Amino acid sequence: MIKNVSNQSVGDYLIDRLHNYGIRHIFGVPGDYILGFYQQLNQSNKIKIINTCDEQGAGFAADAYARINGLGVACVTYCVGGLKVVNSTAQAFAEKSPLVIISGAPGIKERLKNPLLHHKVKDFDTQRKIFEHITVDSIILDNAQTAAQSIDRVLLSAICYKKPIYIEIPRDIILQSIVVYPQNKPYLENNTNNPYLVSEIKPQIQEENLNIDSMNEALTEATTMISSSKKPVIVVGVEIHRFKLQQKLLHLIDKTNIPFVTTVLSKSVLSENHPLFLGLYEGAMGFELVRQYVESSDCLILFGAPMIETDFSITPTPISQSHSIFLTSENITIKHHRFDNICFQDFLDALINSLLIKRKSDIEAMEIIKKKNYKNNLHYLKNNTDFRIIKGQKITIKHLFERLNFSITDDTIIIADVGDSLFGSLDLTIHNQTEFLSSAYYLSMGFAVPAIIGAKLANPALRPIAIVGDGAFQMTGMEISTIARFDLNPIIIVLNNHGYGTERLLLEGSFNDILSWNYSLIPKILGKGRGFIIETEDQLDDALNSIEEIFSQELCILDVRLGKDDMSYALQRLTNVLSKKISK
Amino acid sequence: MIKNVSNQSVGDYLIDRLHNYGIRHIFGVPGDYILGFYQQLNQSNKIKIINTCDEQGAGFAADAYARINGLGVACVTYCVGGLKVVNSTAQAFAEKSPLVIISGAPGIKERLKNPLLHHKVKDFDTQRKIFEHITVDSIILDNAQTAAQSIDRVLLSAICYKKPIYIEIPRDIILQSIVVYPQNKPYLENNTNNPYLVSEIKPQIQEENLNIDSMNEALTEATTMISSSKKPVIVVGVEIHRFKLQQKLLHLIDKTNIPFVTTVLSKSVLSENHPLFLGLYEGAMGFELVRQYVESSDCLILFGAPMIETDFSITPTPISQSHSIFLTSENITIKHHRFDNICFQDFLDALINSLLIKRKSDIEAMEIIKKKNYKNNLHYLKNNTDFRIIKGQKITIKHLFERLNFSITDDTIIIADVGDSLFGSLDLTIHNQTEFLSSAYYLSMGFAVPAIIGAKLANPALRPIAIVGDGAFQMTGMEISTIARFDLNPIIIVLNNHGYGTERLLLEGSFNDILSWNYSLIPKILGKGRGFIIETEDQLDDALNSIEEIFSQELCILDVRLGKDDMSYALQRLTNVLSKKISK
Repeated sequence: MIKNVSNQSVGDYLIDRLHNYGIRHIFGVPGDYILGFYQQLNQSNKIKIINTCDEQGAGFAADAYARINGLGVACVTYCVGGLKVVNSTAQAFAEKSPLVIISGAPGIKERLKNPLLHHKVKDFDTQRKIFEHITVDSIILDNAQTAAQSIDRVLLSAICYKKPIYIEIPRDIILQSIVVYPQNKPYLENNTNNPYLVSEIKPQIQEENLNIDSMNEALTEATTMISSSKKPVIVVGVEIHRFKLQQKLLHLIDKTNIPFVTTVLSKSVLSENHPLFLGLYEGAMGFELVRQYVESSDCLILFGAPMIETDFSITPTPISQSHSIFLTSENITIKHHRFDNICFQDFLDALINSLLIKRKSDIEAMEIIKKKNYKNNLHYLKNNTDFRIIKGQKITIKHLFERLNFSITDDTIIIADVGDSLFGSLDLTIHNQTEFLSSAYYLSMGFAVPAIIGAKLANPALRPIAIVGDGAFQMTGMEISTIARFDLNPIIIVLNNHGYGTERLLLEGSFNDILSWNYSLIPKILGKGRGFIIETEDQLDDALNSIEEIFSQELCILDVRLGKDDMSYALQRLTNVLSKKISK
Repeated sequence: MIKNVSNQSVGDYLIDRLHNYGIRHIFGVPGDYILGFYQQLNQSNKIKIINTCDEQGAGFAADAYARINGLGVACVTYCVGGLKVVNSTAQAFAEKSPLVIISGAPGIKERLKNPLLHHKVKDFDTQRKIFEHITVDSIILDNAQTAAQSIDRVLLSAICYKKPIYIEIPRDIILQSIVVYPQNKPYLENNTNNPYLVSEIKPQIQEENLNIDSMNEALTEATTMISSSKKPVIVVGVEIHRFKLQQKLLHLIDKTNIPFVTTVLSKSVLSENHPLFLGLYEGAMGFELVRQYVESSDCLILFGAPMIETDFSITPTPISQSHSIFLTSENITIKHHRFDNICFQDFLDALINSLLIKRKSDIEAMEIIKKKNYKNNLHYLKNNTDFRIIKGQKITIKHLFERLNFSITDDTIIIADVGDSLFGSLDLTIHNQTEFLSSAYYLSMGFAVPAIIGAKLANPALRPIAIVGDGAFQMTGMEISTIARFDLNPIIIVLNNHGYGTERLLLEGSFNDILSWNYSLIPKILGKGRGFIIETEDQLDDALNSIEEIFSQELCILDVRLGKDDMSYALQRLTNVLSKKISK
């Protein structure tokens, strides 16, 4: 086998590969085992280190970056750093975000005789073993000879499967020279600076397993089912975003005039201003007519929407499998039978090129349905004169989201934390694609504030508005320090209801209480930004107006003081349905 | 097999067992999968729930509680909670702290057909698999029939091995009735309210494996070696604390007059006011004559001190194995040979009862050695008139620790975070046993502030003084909110040097910088406590005096503004040695 020792080090090779995949920032906290790589990063001038307050924040920031950029990296030290990002890696796994965890580690030579080095937990590979459970691929770069191939392999796994991977770098390997085998050219070597190339990769089903007869059979069945249906609906799932298939799916929608819905996890994957957008399908929490429309459809085309509890409720699901075409990156199921050897990207292409006809568009009727049944629908509220601001009127969550919807522009990205921050945000109208971020299935509290960092750096053109409960803010809110340090300019809206509001509905107890902070004073501690106390409707209006007009380049935090039992309109809908069920 | 269905539920049985082991508080954040158990805890009135800001804080608080109480519990929800305490559990594993992780989980019936429930990462047992790598025992309580035995087993493992364990409770099991097998009486059923009973358990070596001949052989060899030595020293290790052997070891010390040292990890395991206490052995960072005394000893008796890098530096260690008796819970090694079937508690008893004679006490000479060679030794500084406070003189880390040593009383517990907070604290004189807490081997930043919560609740008689760098404070410092909410009264001293000070010595870069906060304003955000800005020696003196006199029941935070390149006296000693080595 011909091989060449390159003059490039393992660390520099990794930096180049990450840069080729569109990485411009990595997130982490320095520590001695990773310092060598940090030095290489600094010297490379290709990737900027964003050091966060805590590694947990770095993990969440990198996940947010990955969702927008197509790949994200958290880079931390051994165990005391790495084991703090286990939860954010698990979130990325559950919600299909291609997150790369790079961890420094003791050198291979240091590991001889198994000494009790600092940061070591049990065995030297304990951390790697942990990450094997929550990543799709992992590697300890213990050999410079094979490092280049290993790096290529694991990065490709992240890109292909849209799942996290783990790379551990023993500190004595980082400066060693890589070995290049000519027949194994580094993947994508010449495709620099284009993160979007990743949409071209179709890894889930290997080429040799694809079956053209299988494809033809499924396609015929699906097109027949769609053509003969009276009320088809497309459910746009999160994988459409992860695999960057939005434009193709829009093409299919425009070609066929089939209306579409998104789900909680896939909110904003397609623009909510599209005329064929019916609304969010969110089961009992959603608007009744959207729910009815989807559940009574005679042909549901679920595109990249895994059957998760938070989207489809699963005990049992009201989705009729007998009327469904269910397409994910893992398999294609029509009614009750499954096809395993079709690539779902190929299937989408085939549908676009099929003989499906343009249906009679009934946009006007759809508008009427939407309008009529969306009492308090923020979109329609915004476009008529029903909305009033009453001076001195105590602020409510419902009013907050109604007013906030006016402030959303084409350049806004909404980042919602878990609980009523998420539920309330579901009613907001997102103008463009992928301008809504939330841990909407894994439901990890504390994602929103650190996610601002990743989102803003991945797309500086956007202004983040983060909506976060006081409970979640007290988990990771200190990352506001990182936000201030790097001069990002989000609006952070703290739903201050003195604890875990949505949990009070399940079981009340003093464990739902937390200390009330004066959140508006936080900029004084940071020496940067603006704080607002919001107790009335007019104070909210004044604050949002002044932010838009004057403080657009500054971090702003709104301490919105809410009643303990207040809840969003979405949560009201849910509790109404539940109480009706109970009273029956 | 005779069995009885008890009328006690699985959850109540677990609460009773924990209560029997001395648990009065558990630390966590509520979430739906654990709410049932939280309700049982509230109704039991035996154990109080301390809800922290973030699960990470709960993990650290529970670890601190475990170190003082003999057992500690973090109680969290599935994955989004549990996976946030992986790092604190790893710390407990590395530093031998008996920490119990209780996690809620989806019910066993809910797991049928493997649905994608919220908070699920990959498989339903993913979280348990992760914890298997960092615990000594783990269980999913999936069967009420065996739950009681399983609970007994895993709790006993924590107590016996002084390591963390993992208990997962599917939410549909918690209210089911336990089954009691009469022949397997719950362990320690009648020994309520006495956490100290745990010192009586000798689990590491099973009774049947103990070998009396082996014991006699080792004892004869050890006593001969000690008796014929000229300069024996006892190194008191951390296991002496974990296995509660302090009184016995003091007995041996008093009987033989052999002087002792502690290490970085075992600081304060025996009182530092004991006349036979020579000082801390901390290698190049320590005081030179202590180092020389230990390294030139002709008989080193290392009691429960594992050969960890941070205590003994291991590349190679300067400890002479040919002159060592090395006793840990895992085995006993004399010189270069090992005895595997002796219990080290038994061996300590045997040494006490052996014919070892009382050596001629040379306390006066020891005092001279200590005094002479401890230039700037805080203990001696405190007892003479050399210490001066100069009005307007800029504060330094060295002066801070000198002054702080005057404020330590018999009721003080020092909690030191990682970095110069730890190094500087090593020179402080701790009056009583176990009144110093730090992640001194695993070195996880961010332990100190949450540890206050666990320490104060485990022993309310103590006033915690936490010393924490600004970098570590920005990781977990929001737990000051929990501290304020439960009216704990620590003094928190923030070493504000604008970033990761000790790391600058290794590699300087902008990644070592963090935003400077006005830490003294934090009490204004909380609505509780007092903040101080400390820029000069007299400001520190005034603050500490007023805290002692007036604010003893209040949370106090001192923002100590230090030079970027300032360092503690301990770190100066280390860098002096290193620079001498380099210049040779």
